[in-house]
Amino acid sequence: MSTTKDFEPVPPWQVLSETTLVEQRWLTVREQHVRLANGHEIERFHLLGGPSWSAVLCVTEAGQVPLVRQYRHGMAGTSLELPAGVIDAEEQPIAAARRELREETGFESAHIEALATLVPEPARNTARAHFFFARGGRRVAGQSLDGSEELSVVVVPAHELFELIEQGHIVHGSHIAAILLAARRGLF
Amino acid sequence: MSTTKDFEPVPPWQVLSETTLVEQRWLTVREQHVRLANGHEIERFHLLGGPSWSAVLCVTEAGQVPLVRQYRHGMAGTSLELPAGVIDAEEQPIAAARRELREETGFESAHIEALATLVPEPARNTARAHFFFARGGRRVAGQSLDGSEELSVVVVPAHELFELIEQGHIVHGSHIAAILLAARRGLF
Repeated sequence: MSTTKDFEPVPPWQVLSETTLVEQRWLTVREQHVRLANGHEIERFHLLGGPSWSAVLCVTEAGQVPLVRQYRHGMAGTSLELPAGVIDAEEQPIAAARRELREETGFESAHIEALATLVPEPARNTARAHFFFARGGRRVAGQSLDGSEELSVVVVPAHELFELIEQGHIVHGSHIAAILLAARRGLF
Repeated sequence: MSTTKDFEPVPPWQVLSETTLVEQRWLTVREQHVRLANGHEIERFHLLGGPSWSAVLCVTEAGQVPLVRQYRHGMAGTSLELPAGVIDAEEQPIAAARRELREETGFESAHIEALATLVPEPARNTARAHFFFARGGRRVAGQSLDGSEELSVVVVPAHELFELIEQGHIVHGSHIAAILLAARRGLF
């Protein structure tokens, strides 16, 4: 058994050839023939790509958190999540977080800071998830959605987030990670 | 603005037609023409599928946790993760967790319990991630890997998991969620 305590980077795979199977705005699929550092080859590895996204945990002065609730076709069910969305071309992750917060919930905050950058599917998806924490949030407008977004805003006391996770209302892995990280840091 | 506190399920999308773009063992991509409950149609939604997976947070009597460290081609970097792997056909999630723990780290545990079932990408991927907590783990063997698995075992004190997350060594969103959930429940 190899056991190592150091954190030197592991050598990357070598891409020997590549075919693009899907090339769409929200998704790319590349079939790659790759060689591992140990010499082993995988003839058909599928590398997924698509825009990275931002999400924001926003707490109001009164300790309330706006969440969004919507049907999620991947899980074929209803999901309660932090406001989130993909980062537009040439947009900064923090700008996307502010924009999505405003569009999806009508909330704004003057105080927003980076919380964590996580990787939802490190094995085969290039996308990153950028999480932000906003304090002093307040509702300044209604939602501003396009027709493909069908979601309702649910405002909950911050301390209820843990129950919502334990009860299975919040199931999005990376969103749960961000909420619990913020709690561990004493941010709410 | 719609604000609702109830947790009735939201109506699902209707699939009007579907074309399979990729149909492989580890990945399916279906291009669907869908209709939302509000009547809006999305002509090319890409639904991803693939095997669900299990992962296990195993703590020894001495408070040590075996992790695995490997190059992850999606993130194009080195990732420190819980032992994890896809669930074989007709295999139960808990059996996959035990098997992956044994194969990837050489550890076993007689006491393993469900921790949480999370959804890594609810919007468009059908896969679930089943997390387990194992107590009283012990090293009984070496690793048992196939050539496509190139990973090293890193055994850390459980209390160091938080530092490893904060330092960006552990970045897998759902894995972080599971570790922090277990900590919140006082499991370690």
